[in-house]
Amino acid sequence: MSKSSVSSSVIKRLPRYYRFLGDLCRKGYTRISSRELSEKMGFTASQIRQDLNCFGGFGQQGYGYNVKELHKAIGDILGVNAENKLIMIGAGNLGSAIASHIDFRKKGFKLIGIFDSDPEKCGQEIAGVKVTDVAEIRRFCVANKPICAVLCIPKNSAQYVANSLVDLGVKAFWNFSHYDLKMEHESIIVENVHLGDSLMTLAYGLNNQ
Amino acid sequence: MSKSSVSSSVIKRLPRYYRFLGDLCRKGYTRISSRELSEKMGFTASQIRQDLNCFGGFGQQGYGYNVKELHKAIGDILGVNAENKLIMIGAGNLGSAIASHIDFRKKGFKLIGIFDSDPEKCGQEIAGVKVTDVAEIRRFCVANKPICAVLCIPKNSAQYVANSLVDLGVKAFWNFSHYDLKMEHESIIVENVHLGDSLMTLAYGLNNQ
Repeated sequence: MSKSSVSSSVIKRLPRYYRFLGDLCRKGYTRISSRELSEKMGFTASQIRQDLNCFGGFGQQGYGYNVKELHKAIGDILGVNAENKLIMIGAGNLGSAIASHIDFRKKGFKLIGIFDSDPEKCGQEIAGVKVTDVAEIRRFCVANKPICAVLCIPKNSAQYVANSLVDLGVKAFWNFSHYDLKMEHESIIVENVHLGDSLMTLAYGLNNQ
Repeated sequence: MSKSSVSSSVIKRLPRYYRFLGDLCRKGYTRISSRELSEKMGFTASQIRQDLNCFGGFGQQGYGYNVKELHKAIGDILGVNAENKLIMIGAGNLGSAIASHIDFRKKGFKLIGIFDSDPEKCGQEIAGVKVTDVAEIRRFCVANKPICAVLCIPKNSAQYVANSLVDLGVKAFWNFSHYDLKMEHESIIVENVHLGDSLMTLAYGLNNQ
């Protein structure tokens, strides 16, 4: 199956496989059947076989999967060693928490710059990266060519900033602002994180038990 | 259709409808057709009609939807005014960012306590709530009966804390730790937030353009 035909729901499950297989490696598992893996992950065994078949043959009849090999293969498909250059816009509460909390290098990215418009934040260091005045962003991007940006700014500023970044060659956005990027830039890659939506889903669960 | 038969993918889309309809209200829209709504939201018009039909009849042939009424109705289905009592465990970077960043009251919750084991954090105030020693949690829960907990602690502590909280009557978890709660407590309601998975999906996009 060609990569472009892999459905987005399969792609969204890949990081979960990668996490679980990493755990299994650390616990000393060397091989695992799709049935065992399905019990641990809460997917059906047939879904696991189908998902993994999208990327070519893993596993052998009667043996199962080699945990370390499968973990590495999925990591390669995801591109976890790619060190894509990433900048963060917005060093407020959420931005600094994400910069400190996420191990970008293990997820395929390298945080090379953090930008904010607040003079009090500029010059501070977060996760080993100095916060720079957002006015410097054009010069920085021309010199350093980041390919991805994390947006931790309010919706109104996000629109303007995202447009400039697209012009400056940014191809992908990890979007915590609530501005719908995809509407204006069809070709860019966007992962929207709507934390509030997740919380409301929980409210629904409590409200409809 | 009975509420229990509504699929989880429909439920996960509800907060998005709620957000978009709220925006439309603020922009002064009074009514909207499913076609217009579909253009704005990036869903097909037929999916919108199907989704909303799960909760009874909204909208009228030839008129479309009354924006304000539909916004209110979806809010009621989600339970955004429920003020479910919520506590947060872990006042580190991520916990404090979430406590400050999320408007819990607008999402159906009321933040009534924040707990941490770090003596330096205890006594500090985050989002108007004082951080309390986690050793006090049993007493607090017996007295205040929170129904939901946000877990912003590492995987290893999450397991122990979650078990205690379930015993103390907590029914729902907003889970930022990477411990798979659902495995041990089938009846509880869990929303897992794996920020790293979202970032890896973005890496996949860049790696497989």
